[in-house]
Amino acid sequence: MSTGKINVSVENIFPLIKKFLYSDHEIFLRELISNATDATLKLKHLTSIGESSAEYGNPQIEVKIDKEGKKLHIIDQGLGMTQEEVEKYINQLAFSGAEEFLNKYEDGAKDTGIIGHFGLGFYSAFMVAEKVEIITKSHKDEPAAHWTCDGSPNFTLEVADKTERGTEIILHIAEDSTEFLEEGRIAGLLSKYNKFMPVPIKFGTKTETLPKPEDAKEDDPAPTQEVDNIINNPNPAWTKQPADLEEEDYKNFYQELYPANFDEPLFNIHLNVDYPFNLTGILYFPKLGQDMNMQKDRIQLYQNQVFVTDNVEGIVPEFLTMLRGVIDSPDIPLNVSRSYLQADGAVKKISGYISRKVADKLKSLFNNDREDFEKKWNDIKLVIEYGMLSEDKFFEKADKFALYPTVDNTFFTWEELEAKIKENQVDKDGKTVVLYASDTDAQHSYIQSAKDKGYEVLLLDSPIVSHLIQKLETSKENVTFVRVDGDHIDNLIKKDEEQISKLSDDEKETVKTAITDAIANSSYTVQVEAMDSNAAPFIITQPEFMRRMKEMQQAGGGGMNMFGNMPEMYNLVVNANHELVTEILNADADETKKRLITQSFDLAKLSQNLLKGEELTSFIKRSYEMIK
Amino acid sequence: MSTGKINVSVENIFPLIKKFLYSDHEIFLRELISNATDATLKLKHLTSIGESSAEYGNPQIEVKIDKEGKKLHIIDQGLGMTQEEVEKYINQLAFSGAEEFLNKYEDGAKDTGIIGHFGLGFYSAFMVAEKVEIITKSHKDEPAAHWTCDGSPNFTLEVADKTERGTEIILHIAEDSTEFLEEGRIAGLLSKYNKFMPVPIKFGTKTETLPKPEDAKEDDPAPTQEVDNIINNPNPAWTKQPADLEEEDYKNFYQELYPANFDEPLFNIHLNVDYPFNLTGILYFPKLGQDMNMQKDRIQLYQNQVFVTDNVEGIVPEFLTMLRGVIDSPDIPLNVSRSYLQADGAVKKISGYISRKVADKLKSLFNNDREDFEKKWNDIKLVIEYGMLSEDKFFEKADKFALYPTVDNTFFTWEELEAKIKENQVDKDGKTVVLYASDTDAQHSYIQSAKDKGYEVLLLDSPIVSHLIQKLETSKENVTFVRVDGDHIDNLIKKDEEQISKLSDDEKETVKTAITDAIANSSYTVQVEAMDSNAAPFIITQPEFMRRMKEMQQAGGGGMNMFGNMPEMYNLVVNANHELVTEILNADADETKKRLITQSFDLAKLSQNLLKGEELTSFIKRSYEMIK
Repeated sequence: MSTGKINVSVENIFPLIKKFLYSDHEIFLRELISNATDATLKLKHLTSIGESSAEYGNPQIEVKIDKEGKKLHIIDQGLGMTQEEVEKYINQLAFSGAEEFLNKYEDGAKDTGIIGHFGLGFYSAFMVAEKVEIITKSHKDEPAAHWTCDGSPNFTLEVADKTERGTEIILHIAEDSTEFLEEGRIAGLLSKYNKFMPVPIKFGTKTETLPKPEDAKEDDPAPTQEVDNIINNPNPAWTKQPADLEEEDYKNFYQELYPANFDEPLFNIHLNVDYPFNLTGILYFPKLGQDMNMQKDRIQLYQNQVFVTDNVEGIVPEFLTMLRGVIDSPDIPLNVSRSYLQADGAVKKISGYISRKVADKLKSLFNNDREDFEKKWNDIKLVIEYGMLSEDKFFEKADKFALYPTVDNTFFTWEELEAKIKENQVDKDGKTVVLYASDTDAQHSYIQSAKDKGYEVLLLDSPIVSHLIQKLETSKENVTFVRVDGDHIDNLIKKDEEQISKLSDDEKETVKTAITDAIANSSYTVQVEAMDSNAAPFIITQPEFMRRMKEMQQAGGGGMNMFGNMPEMYNLVVNANHELVTEILNADADETKKRLITQSFDLAKLSQNLLKGEELTSFIKRSYEMIK
Repeated sequence: MSTGKINVSVENIFPLIKKFLYSDHEIFLRELISNATDATLKLKHLTSIGESSAEYGNPQIEVKIDKEGKKLHIIDQGLGMTQEEVEKYINQLAFSGAEEFLNKYEDGAKDTGIIGHFGLGFYSAFMVAEKVEIITKSHKDEPAAHWTCDGSPNFTLEVADKTERGTEIILHIAEDSTEFLEEGRIAGLLSKYNKFMPVPIKFGTKTETLPKPEDAKEDDPAPTQEVDNIINNPNPAWTKQPADLEEEDYKNFYQELYPANFDEPLFNIHLNVDYPFNLTGILYFPKLGQDMNMQKDRIQLYQNQVFVTDNVEGIVPEFLTMLRGVIDSPDIPLNVSRSYLQADGAVKKISGYISRKVADKLKSLFNNDREDFEKKWNDIKLVIEYGMLSEDKFFEKADKFALYPTVDNTFFTWEELEAKIKENQVDKDGKTVVLYASDTDAQHSYIQSAKDKGYEVLLLDSPIVSHLIQKLETSKENVTFVRVDGDHIDNLIKKDEEQISKLSDDEKETVKTAITDAIANSSYTVQVEAMDSNAAPFIITQPEFMRRMKEMQQAGGGGMNMFGNMPEMYNLVVNANHELVTEILNADADETKKRLITQSFDLAKLSQNLLKGEELTSFIKRSYEMIK
């Protein structure tokens, strides 16, 4: 038996870095600027604890394109490295300097926000450069060093004459990566990854207009000066304490995050926790429409102010991915699969925390300014309803602030709704019946009938409402929902009293047969019923159960498959007590009977938006005749 | 100046492999089975050229779970390794054996389909295992070797007593990865990644029922036997020549690919090219609805029969991502960013080739069985129309087979359509006017008016049709499209002859004022025009340009932003020659005039589906009164 050590063949490492390290080559810039930031914050820490005698000053990081020389420079004024440190940190691949530093200065280092997550970062330079140089001068009193490597494992290291503290990385951009010599490309990357990094980043200069001197003539041009173009905001709102921020600051930060956006957010939630995990951030509720798919993937995930991704699936609860804003947490594991992420305990806790904070915020908004909350309801309900469906804990909390608007724009909480309808809307079996409409226009005549009875009609029109109703029916006791066009009004909430019928049972049967024959349509079941004589003569209804199952299936995620493909089925309820029906019964001529039935049936169809195409055209033609 | 070699610190490599190699840990199984397949096919090649004296036989790969021992075994009957080869291929990390092999046996090796793309593959085992063993016996007459490594860089290597040729990999599954000891999880992975790999893969056994012996009694149970459970089809349809496949074979393969699917594909396209790139595959046209988003990401990408991904964005032209099927090409670079992929020359060629093949297939289907092609049109038009919009080359080719159906279900090619309408549908300025409807029900009365004039009306109802029309108008000469409700029929195709008006200009003005006042609605512009006295008295039209711009914006990708938020605007065209309009003009009582106008306006609204809510309810009530 022999033993040994696995040998890593260095010749093969560079191609691997190019291939595997990151699938997106553009990441190299984020990595190098992270290193520069790291070096700057380390120096800040060392000076603050007296372990460096350097003058910290106001360091910045500069990114410079040398298009002619095909070079990209990243220059910092941080810690710098001695020749010995270059040997240690650069020439030893996969040796994470940040880790060692963190171990040494544990507690303090954490607070200074040192980015210690990107160990192999520096070598990502070779994804885009055929040759890389490092010129670096340590904060310690030692000569500067100049390191060069052409992507083979061979390097050279010599003394340099750099006198200012800090590190300059020079990338000799490879032929296949010249995009990274374009100003627009680099500006785009800086804006994507580094917009909120904690050290100012300079990229070129810009012209600033100065105030005119007092003795200037009117048409003298205003004087200008060239100033550094700083591309980042080193102190973004989420890194501050909520107490230090005004409403206006939150709105301005929203604009900073989404500059191309013109709408204002409805409100925000400031996240701030450091135990048992570290997380800061600001979430915004934007104005959401009814569309559940369009608005996802706008929340940005950062780690210590470095942009990581805008895919927060698994980290933010599914129902909150429609929100916008920023989450910053060093505790979220990266480079792991989404399924692993979802199983990870820490991430689960983060997700739970976010969900809880959002519920608390909604509760306090409701409590503090209910009128305003009601105004916003239609823009936020989709998130809340989706949350109620997908998380039981959220459902419980939301019970206190979820609103049920009526067609007349009154907003009830569940408790208020129950109190309001518990007298009038209980059927003979003691069940509370909640009436709702999904479209005030399309269901207008049905809503009118219900209101005439003194019933409350809710307006529930979000795309997932059929699922929510199903959930409410199973969570609440002795409650049932039915849409206003689910049956005629006396049947929707069945009371004990019965309407007396003007027609005998035989007459009813005769009318039923006559109508069934005349309309000759198997999608309609004719029912002759004694109703209020002022109610419409013909009413088309669609039974609740089947319709809801179909809708649930359309909305996705539940409902039974078999219902999706079934044809629409309707009831044609004929009001035995309406005088038109008596006329139909007594009409002598078949022609008259047929005309009365057809016209009435067409009108009933109209009120369910079922009269279409040729039927509608000929109805309109007939009706023009009747006007004259 | 000093020089040196970058030193890779092996201690840090294992954590890196775990972190960076693949973001999905489950990939390890694909990698190990790829290696096993590789070893088997290499042996096949060597025996076929006489460089190995081994008996190739019918080798298979076995995957075995030892749940109690927390081990997963992958066993092949391939090439095997001598102790020396283990030293070389395993102990030297990142040394791709396949590459060396390919260089040595260049031409022949390519044909045997050796998988040489996954260099670091073996080490991915450490993503899920805390310890890995290799027991291997070479096809050469040398003792077997036993290699063990616990994830530190230290390994042991000793002689083993394995006597059968081949390699067994034993993974001691780590605590955090015990999911990979579940039979269901492994079966799922095998089915996802290895369903079509070229060597049979055994995973457990299954019970097979045998025919009853002739002398068996009637209620004797049929005899059974345990047989190997082979989870893959080593010779999937796309690896065969089109000439060797029947229609039935293609359908069966579709079922193999999508076992949960019940619909049959409409037709398929067999891709097969080996210069200038290597690509095989079969694409299927499924029945597509009108929904452009639901159906993407069903095409599977393979490399030498190993599943890679079902995200073919950038490889397959965007408009074909709604298709289904398989593409297999070793020439598609993996592990690169999508943006790089789209810029890559080889990939561009592949994409162009697929697009061309699809166009050719559609052309031949159209030529060979036009009737059948017409039947399928509604299920395939979305892809074709989208292709016409997004690729100019495809647009040119599609001009020969793209169909334009009429509301009466006649299908014209563009050439046929032009020939058909060139006499009747040219306006006084010499422009050919194509009339279309988007909904035969909703636009029934307008379609009827057009048909009464002998015009052809197309039915164009796909969601991107407004974009397609825009494209056709700019590509074809002197052609304009207008929807049937864009104006009244005499204005849609303006001829030279003019209708004589029954009303004088003054009378027209009086009627116009009366109607404008009565309807009191700023969304409608009233126009009094001399039309056929049999045409409707009131017609609501919606000008083409504005409507189309709004629709284009809704469909996304073009159209002008400003139109999206504009209110709907209509024209109310009043027929000066209709007797009802004369009646309105002459009505004495304001009450009568008002009633006539209101009822007529309501009827006009009805035929555009614009009468809703309270207006509709009161219209219906009034109409019931009128029946009696």
